[in-house]
Amino acid sequence: MRRVYFDYVTTTPADPRVVEAMLPFFTETFGNPAAHLHEYGLKAKNAVEEARVKVAELISAKPQEIIFTFSGTEANNMAIKGLALAHQGKGKHIIISEIEHFSVLYTARDLERMGFKVTYLKVDKDGLVDPDDVAKAINRDTILISIMHANNEIGVIEPIAKIGSITKARGVLFHTDAVATAGIIPVYVAELGVDALSMVGHAFYGPKGVGALYLREGVDIVPILKGGAQEGGRRPGTDNVPGIVGMGKAAELARLEMNSRIEHLIPLRDKLIHELPNRLKYFHFTGHILKRLPGHVSFWISFAEGETLVLFLNYNGIAVASGSACSSPDLKASHVLTAIGVPPDVCHGSITVSFGKDNTMEDVDYFLDVLPKVVEKCWQMSPLYDDEIKSRPINDGQGGIRV
Amino acid sequence: MRRVYFDYVTTTPADPRVVEAMLPFFTETFGNPAAHLHEYGLKAKNAVEEARVKVAELISAKPQEIIFTFSGTEANNMAIKGLALAHQGKGKHIIISEIEHFSVLYTARDLERMGFKVTYLKVDKDGLVDPDDVAKAINRDTILISIMHANNEIGVIEPIAKIGSITKARGVLFHTDAVATAGIIPVYVAELGVDALSMVGHAFYGPKGVGALYLREGVDIVPILKGGAQEGGRRPGTDNVPGIVGMGKAAELARLEMNSRIEHLIPLRDKLIHELPNRLKYFHFTGHILKRLPGHVSFWISFAEGETLVLFLNYNGIAVASGSACSSPDLKASHVLTAIGVPPDVCHGSITVSFGKDNTMEDVDYFLDVLPKVVEKCWQMSPLYDDEIKSRPINDGQGGIRV
Repeated sequence: MRRVYFDYVTTTPADPRVVEAMLPFFTETFGNPAAHLHEYGLKAKNAVEEARVKVAELISAKPQEIIFTFSGTEANNMAIKGLALAHQGKGKHIIISEIEHFSVLYTARDLERMGFKVTYLKVDKDGLVDPDDVAKAINRDTILISIMHANNEIGVIEPIAKIGSITKARGVLFHTDAVATAGIIPVYVAELGVDALSMVGHAFYGPKGVGALYLREGVDIVPILKGGAQEGGRRPGTDNVPGIVGMGKAAELARLEMNSRIEHLIPLRDKLIHELPNRLKYFHFTGHILKRLPGHVSFWISFAEGETLVLFLNYNGIAVASGSACSSPDLKASHVLTAIGVPPDVCHGSITVSFGKDNTMEDVDYFLDVLPKVVEKCWQMSPLYDDEIKSRPINDGQGGIRV
Repeated sequence: MRRVYFDYVTTTPADPRVVEAMLPFFTETFGNPAAHLHEYGLKAKNAVEEARVKVAELISAKPQEIIFTFSGTEANNMAIKGLALAHQGKGKHIIISEIEHFSVLYTARDLERMGFKVTYLKVDKDGLVDPDDVAKAINRDTILISIMHANNEIGVIEPIAKIGSITKARGVLFHTDAVATAGIIPVYVAELGVDALSMVGHAFYGPKGVGALYLREGVDIVPILKGGAQEGGRRPGTDNVPGIVGMGKAAELARLEMNSRIEHLIPLRDKLIHELPNRLKYFHFTGHILKRLPGHVSFWISFAEGETLVLFLNYNGIAVASGSACSSPDLKASHVLTAIGVPPDVCHGSITVSFGKDNTMEDVDYFLDVLPKVVEKCWQMSPLYDDEIKSRPINDGQGGIRV
């Protein structure tokens, strides 16, 4: 059976060149960078600093502005809580969007329990935050705004640069969760106007277990973990040296190959966007159809439950995501789909197809062949099948034809 | 030049068998365990669960009692803050020792800022906590006690089982930082009587970037990072799958090979302990000479600054540690040495020699040959050299001869 991985937004495989770069740091250059008085530690420290330069270059930052973390989740926790605690003397109001990742959303809720006030900005039906809404929500107590660069579930790219010019003019700190974009599309911190930015290595063919927080030089932050003096006293714990080296290599490759990767992804995406509505009825895209990640298509299909679709596709060798890429802690409907107005009864039901550099047009054709059969099978499980579903023709205007 | 690594307490190289076990999880079985509805994610999830069993077996725990973290520092932060916050309804008093790792010490200080009261137990001149002191320090507000299993800097093994029987009788939660012992000497949670225990993979030939918190079944904890539902909702963030697999393999090897590794280490240690005082004057061991890690020797030498010694030893190809294995955030004298009564002017000056499974008796002989020369060189830099240091004979009773 053909095997097709279409879940790159959840995680990517490490590039073999990345693994090769990491290997010496497991068994040979295995020192702890904190022990840099001897050669073993010093070599490890130098490798970490070289990787820091590469990660900084990817987003046009300075090396000293990169704080390595163990995950995007840790970077987001650190940005939201660490910045809020460091700047609470100026005010205790924070603004985030409704569709942030759980690591932002639940950290904000934790801050509410600590006496902070949080505004949750609505998004439109395409998943877009309106920069005017950001401007209106800022008050004299506002110290921090966090809006994600792109949403993993519905693929929409938010107007970060526009929001950045507003936050800069108003003197409010601005963080963006760029886990779904850094290393995938151009992300330059000065152009975006952000003070802090979260990223993770396994989103762009680096290894799991390493992420980074960009923090603009001169911005204070309170460490959320306590311990040693690693990462300039801002993040303790023994560095994951092979992981950091791997993320550095992945960042270098992403910078050099980004344009060709994007050029490879867009035709795959656009083929799917053009073909899907022609082959399926009851079909609905999610997220803005143009302002979206180059390798990302997301949709839902009436009467076909998302998790069931994922399972049936898996039986055919195809891996896609349903709902959020990370497991929902509360097993409720996806907060992202709810926010864009998807009816609550289908909110477990969206499908996220995300492509990577190793996918081919044949993979897309295979998916286009399999999906309608799998959907039909789902529909046949519905009590409404005979009376309602079966009878309606494809392309009847009941959703789907938006391209 | 001969190269000798004697800093295993700071970090170990990954075992080649560990790296081999990890490799498929970078590029082939690369899925995200949270995406376990498809085969890529499911295979990764299964690998994580297999590793969890192996880590649990190492310390005679149940798999569901193992929470994977990214570091020992994170495990310690989570244990101290997470347990304190979860159980503060019963009281707000915590007990730790003076010689805990920074990740425990500074987390406790953070809790003080949040209204908790912390008792810092003194240790004796050998670095030992007196269980009677623990018993006396417990009051009706005490909810948590954290005493490290062995101190990385001075090698002393604390009477955890005795303390565990006290905490159990008094109904107080007991955590131990076992980063320096788990995977190295027998660590069985029931025998120790602990409710929580921190460990890290790179201490026992696993990779960096992965640790674990043992939490006894039924004990509540508040997650310190917020986000997805990974690790039973107790620790969010995409799993470092290759790292977890590597820690699992390292745990399996440690369990199977522990006795032979210890039998290999003890003669190396004891040779050094017996020979050093015969070859050096102004020599002082630190930490209890018998109740110590099998591969650990620590000492200081009057008039010879520790960091200088480490550098001079490094020029001779020998890697040892000075002071704490982790960089001190405040560059003050080592809090551990201060606690055992080492004079403040030498508190930057201790040397920690720690052996691993790949060291040989020839390595020890080389060290015994090099160290006196290097110390002599340090002494010659002292303004006291001609008048005081040079004239005194070896074995003059001025410290050192304690074996």
